[in-house]
Amino acid sequence: MSKFNFDNLWSEKSTDAQRIITDHAKYDFAVAYPPFEGVPLDGLIDGLRTKVDADSQKVAIEMAYYPHVQGDESLREFTSKKLLDDRGIKCDKESLVLCNGSGEAIGLLIQALIDPDDYVITEQFVYMGTTKQLTYFNANIVGSPTDEKGLIPEKLEETILDIKNKHGVNPKMLYTIPESQNPTGSTLPKQRRIEIIEICKKYGIPILEDDCYVDNRFAGEPEPAFASLDDSGMVIYVGSFSKLIAPGLRMGYFTASEEVIDRALSVKIGSGPNQFTSYAIDGFLRSNLESHRNEYNRLLKGKKESMEKGLIEAFSNTKVKWSSPEGGCYTWLEMTDGTNLSEIRDEVFTRGVGYISGDNFAPNGDGQNMARLCFAFETVEKNYEGIKEFASILKDLKAI
Amino acid sequence: MSKFNFDNLWSEKSTDAQRIITDHAKYDFAVAYPPFEGVPLDGLIDGLRTKVDADSQKVAIEMAYYPHVQGDESLREFTSKKLLDDRGIKCDKESLVLCNGSGEAIGLLIQALIDPDDYVITEQFVYMGTTKQLTYFNANIVGSPTDEKGLIPEKLEETILDIKNKHGVNPKMLYTIPESQNPTGSTLPKQRRIEIIEICKKYGIPILEDDCYVDNRFAGEPEPAFASLDDSGMVIYVGSFSKLIAPGLRMGYFTASEEVIDRALSVKIGSGPNQFTSYAIDGFLRSNLESHRNEYNRLLKGKKESMEKGLIEAFSNTKVKWSSPEGGCYTWLEMTDGTNLSEIRDEVFTRGVGYISGDNFAPNGDGQNMARLCFAFETVEKNYEGIKEFASILKDLKAI
Repeated sequence: MSKFNFDNLWSEKSTDAQRIITDHAKYDFAVAYPPFEGVPLDGLIDGLRTKVDADSQKVAIEMAYYPHVQGDESLREFTSKKLLDDRGIKCDKESLVLCNGSGEAIGLLIQALIDPDDYVITEQFVYMGTTKQLTYFNANIVGSPTDEKGLIPEKLEETILDIKNKHGVNPKMLYTIPESQNPTGSTLPKQRRIEIIEICKKYGIPILEDDCYVDNRFAGEPEPAFASLDDSGMVIYVGSFSKLIAPGLRMGYFTASEEVIDRALSVKIGSGPNQFTSYAIDGFLRSNLESHRNEYNRLLKGKKESMEKGLIEAFSNTKVKWSSPEGGCYTWLEMTDGTNLSEIRDEVFTRGVGYISGDNFAPNGDGQNMARLCFAFETVEKNYEGIKEFASILKDLKAI
Repeated sequence: MSKFNFDNLWSEKSTDAQRIITDHAKYDFAVAYPPFEGVPLDGLIDGLRTKVDADSQKVAIEMAYYPHVQGDESLREFTSKKLLDDRGIKCDKESLVLCNGSGEAIGLLIQALIDPDDYVITEQFVYMGTTKQLTYFNANIVGSPTDEKGLIPEKLEETILDIKNKHGVNPKMLYTIPESQNPTGSTLPKQRRIEIIEICKKYGIPILEDDCYVDNRFAGEPEPAFASLDDSGMVIYVGSFSKLIAPGLRMGYFTASEEVIDRALSVKIGSGPNQFTSYAIDGFLRSNLESHRNEYNRLLKGKKESMEKGLIEAFSNTKVKWSSPEGGCYTWLEMTDGTNLSEIRDEVFTRGVGYISGDNFAPNGDGQNMARLCFAFETVEKNYEGIKEFASILKDLKAI
């Protein structure tokens, strides 16, 4: 039978790009994965068992339904209580929307607020998942200058004015990860948050706060959430269970004012999120949130310290700098100007060490002398060994 | 603090439509839910346990990853074997894509192939989830005439020619549910499938085969899948675990030629489907597919028969007709011309009986004298009682 010809049938927005299948280096610091040793498999199964044993008929009926568009009521209730306890955010189950990962939440919010050619401001270096989505929906992304503490309020106002002057439009949104930022690991101080809210309010720009690393704090205290510092409705708050439990659960959420939720759901196609997984998370976290989080962060702390030990031993007598975050999954590495970590990435990968060079996180493509190193996934031993190996490869390639 | 003003910030495609929250009638025949009594809660938990016990470190590592864009490898392997065994479809794990329900699969395929204003042909009455998605992406939907066996090949060719003549374009796709169709319950005979493939090939129109009810057969044998009758690549095959296990799992899939898969994945935003749920399904079905399916269909058969008993007792001396399907979840009710089941729907709902009137399934809005009754969800007793109650309400409203 001859092959059917699809040539003139593809939609304009589809492409014939090859599927991206992630390949892993021996020492994989390129990933964005939490500690696999802490994934509570037994706890999740027990969580399911608890829910089923409590009322198996109710669970069976709910499983036979197509899920509520906002997701499981009990998990929404639990999550809203968690947001109040942990972040001082007042929301109830009606103003919470569970999604297939925070990625779906961010996608819905982008689609609710961004038209093609609109301007969105982010940190100078920012999570690629969000910039990919913004690019897919044809937004213009402008990174605003940051320092080791994150966004700089005065520079943010300059960025806003610059967009207004150059392009004659007001930016439509500020997207930020204020806690243990991806990729830099920075945490934004309270005072800056207050100033940023004032600036954004002045120009009528809503803030999309992505707080997906707040549970991963292994030192110090988190700063207050943007969403707790404002009650005008300008802050849209996104969270996730990916970094608290596991990405394989695909469960995140957002909370916002009613009108924002309605708009976001108006662009959602398909039904609510995974009911089965909601039971496991709800059943597990209701009894184990504190103990699990403590254990997870103990693991993270050990991993961060072992990577740092490697960094100190390998790079102390060089001009290489790195961030030392108190939470999250990443260390941000900065080499001298002119070093091109982007160019040598494939070679270093082949020799056994994976990382993502800084330019991948920068809307303007800067940062080729920088890299994100994930310390959260590999074991303590591999974090240490891998960094030593990394330094030795860099030396070999005459990059340091 | 004054309220932040979003008025000029919404995207063009968002709307301020209110969220649709499904409300349930006492006798809820409006739903599209499988038998809740058959949801294998213990089996799914045991399935998870089996996977974890077999290799807990592998599972923990995979859970800490963001899932493969095509979904869990083992479940893809199992599903491709199932498709060969049950449907004679040759595919391997590389050509199978797991999705958040078949709805996501259909959405990706629509986006890969359909531009705004393109024409898509469906059955005369067809699944609302698909027509909603087609409408969201601004496709023109044309229903092609059907009889009690489904699409009529000669009429399909007329529909194609009609679109070509009237609009000067070739339809871009045929979407069909050939087994135990939603909403009518019809199953398309093999000979018609062969003829439809020939017609679609003649005009260069790919077929999107939605086979989501094939596992729910409680009498007779399924007809061969379109995808097994063609090897040109023109058939894209979509399946689901929603009606084999439960919708709350949000797990469906599609298989197609490599170029179609690449195009569909090129419009996918966000990562692969739920890894946790994949383990439960894979672990459960590898040991229990046959026994579970038999039990599920035994339940379905009992439910279908009890609803039919009610229909026979209540409507035998009237002009009301109904379909008697050998599988799936629905009976299609047809009242005399002039009876408006759409108009009285709210009143009947308030009095305790839910259904969906036919016009909701018709791209041209016909079918107000028809209705879809789901026999799969309510108990055997409620199916019988509810139909008697339905007849009594209709009598009271002078609709029969």
